[in-house]
Amino acid sequence: MADADRAVLALDIGGTKLAVAVVTTDGRTHGWLVEPTRREEGPDVIIARLFDMGQRAIVRAGLGPVSAVGISCGGPLDATTGVLKSPLHLPGWSDVAIVDLAEAEYGVPAVLENDATAAALGEHRYGAARGASTALYLTVSTGIGGGAIINNMLHRGAAGNGGEFGHIMVRPGGRLCLCGRYGCLEAYASGSSIAHRARAALADSAGGSSLGALAVVKAEDVAAAAKNGDALASKLWNDTVGLLAIAVTDLVNTFEPNIVILGGGVTRSGALLIEPLRAAVLRDAMPPAARAVRIELAGLGDEVCVIGAAALAFDRIGAGVNA
Amino acid sequence: MADADRAVLALDIGGTKLAVAVVTTDGRTHGWLVEPTRREEGPDVIIARLFDMGQRAIVRAGLGPVSAVGISCGGPLDATTGVLKSPLHLPGWSDVAIVDLAEAEYGVPAVLENDATAAALGEHRYGAARGASTALYLTVSTGIGGGAIINNMLHRGAAGNGGEFGHIMVRPGGRLCLCGRYGCLEAYASGSSIAHRARAALADSAGGSSLGALAVVKAEDVAAAAKNGDALASKLWNDTVGLLAIAVTDLVNTFEPNIVILGGGVTRSGALLIEPLRAAVLRDAMPPAARAVRIELAGLGDEVCVIGAAALAFDRIGAGVNA
Repeated sequence: MADADRAVLALDIGGTKLAVAVVTTDGRTHGWLVEPTRREEGPDVIIARLFDMGQRAIVRAGLGPVSAVGISCGGPLDATTGVLKSPLHLPGWSDVAIVDLAEAEYGVPAVLENDATAAALGEHRYGAARGASTALYLTVSTGIGGGAIINNMLHRGAAGNGGEFGHIMVRPGGRLCLCGRYGCLEAYASGSSIAHRARAALADSAGGSSLGALAVVKAEDVAAAAKNGDALASKLWNDTVGLLAIAVTDLVNTFEPNIVILGGGVTRSGALLIEPLRAAVLRDAMPPAARAVRIELAGLGDEVCVIGAAALAFDRIGAGVNA
Repeated sequence: MADADRAVLALDIGGTKLAVAVVTTDGRTHGWLVEPTRREEGPDVIIARLFDMGQRAIVRAGLGPVSAVGISCGGPLDATTGVLKSPLHLPGWSDVAIVDLAEAEYGVPAVLENDATAAALGEHRYGAARGASTALYLTVSTGIGGGAIINNMLHRGAAGNGGEFGHIMVRPGGRLCLCGRYGCLEAYASGSSIAHRARAALADSAGGSSLGALAVVKAEDVAAAAKNGDALASKLWNDTVGLLAIAVTDLVNTFEPNIVILGGGVTRSGALLIEPLRAAVLRDAMPPAARAVRIELAGLGDEVCVIGAAALAFDRIGAGVNA
């Protein structure tokens, strides 16, 4: 299926990792590379490294030159002008004209999109949302983002950031969120928030949790300990899933989607997350909406943002096809 | 502008009132009639009365026979089959095939739509949302409903009820909602919930509120007393607007609309509602979304659902036009 004229380069700039691949129109990745973001290095050094990863991915893929570049990143960003405004997960990045930089580097057209919006398109074209008229994508990662396909069209919204599902209010007056409000979903259920909350709970506890033995507690440690029956971790995990269920129920009631897809690092916990979440949403959402919706893990796994960015790059050069 | 071939009949079935008119393609109403719903009479008697109102409106309008019938009602309903499932605001109505009944009565095609979805279309075609790519309509009435135009298309959703914006969670663990959950917006900010909450606050208070003198407190009494500086009413009103702001902020963050329109009886309070609501949403929503959105009262006022139902009836017979 590899067709050199129809291969694009896709770059995903995450808060924790950079992921890069050449993608063909069948949605397959070639020359896949991942590296830590190392946020402390700042935009200039990270972008140079990202672009170098792209050049290496092109060589590794062995498909010849790429026809376009797709870039995905957390918001806020301006997809129309191709500028990263001030991504919440990349402190110090401000008005970075990433599309201009990428076009200069690779000599082909480039496009920029919110990572979760790109992921929604990726899942709709190649993954779990194929055939769904209305599909919502929720990435539960370092931060929490969202993307929406509505009536089979990518929904960018009036400001171009599509769906900021991480900023649905789930506990009014609760934890301070990076956005400045108190009680947003992101302040509880993102990977970094889960880790923060676990550390705070450990500091307040009388001991006895297996998490106490770890030097630095991460979200995946909380999931693992909850799975093993650790009381502190289980309580925190159940609370997290309950808050995620409030937000997903709000989304199901307000958009009546055919499918809600969850991706991002925190969803690697798999059944421990998706099963109680599904049960809570089916119980709490308005019955017709609850009956109509499927709640699924991302079909494209860790590659979803890269494949979504590639789908946008294909659309940019008029090579968009459904697999 | 009145064109007999292009006049349709529109029927709006509310929890408090029935509204009926003949509507021409310029969005103007003719022969307008309103009556109390008198829910206790049950579906058979009410539908017979509604249809009689329709016949009288046709005579009063003096435009000759209508080409189609548009019906709007609160959900849940099935717009595809034209059946009212079990509207929350009409206890005892279950699987009422209102479209079949209307087609038999008037001898022309009929369509059914969720009232707030119809209102969203009405405002998009003839009112405050003209030219807006993404427009959300929130009706704050006996209950709270929502409708959405996304990318210039009516969004019906997988279950056909579009946007159930009344069931956004605003106070987890709070008041019991008609839907069975605790803490939905509708359980606080609908006209009937505002009235219930005021009566409960009065019962708990030591007196001194001007509302204490009323035999039955209604939402409009609370608004009027708040406007006059009554302490109990002001506290309740501010709390209500704050909860409404949580839901509207969630909507602004998740859909990034160009406009959010508020209609329904409670919004007759005008500036007392819209000004603090607008300030709160602009303060709390993600900055790009907050800058992009307008928050407005319904341009079509009390006629919005009737005009929206008419717009759907025009679309049904291929006579849909933008005014």
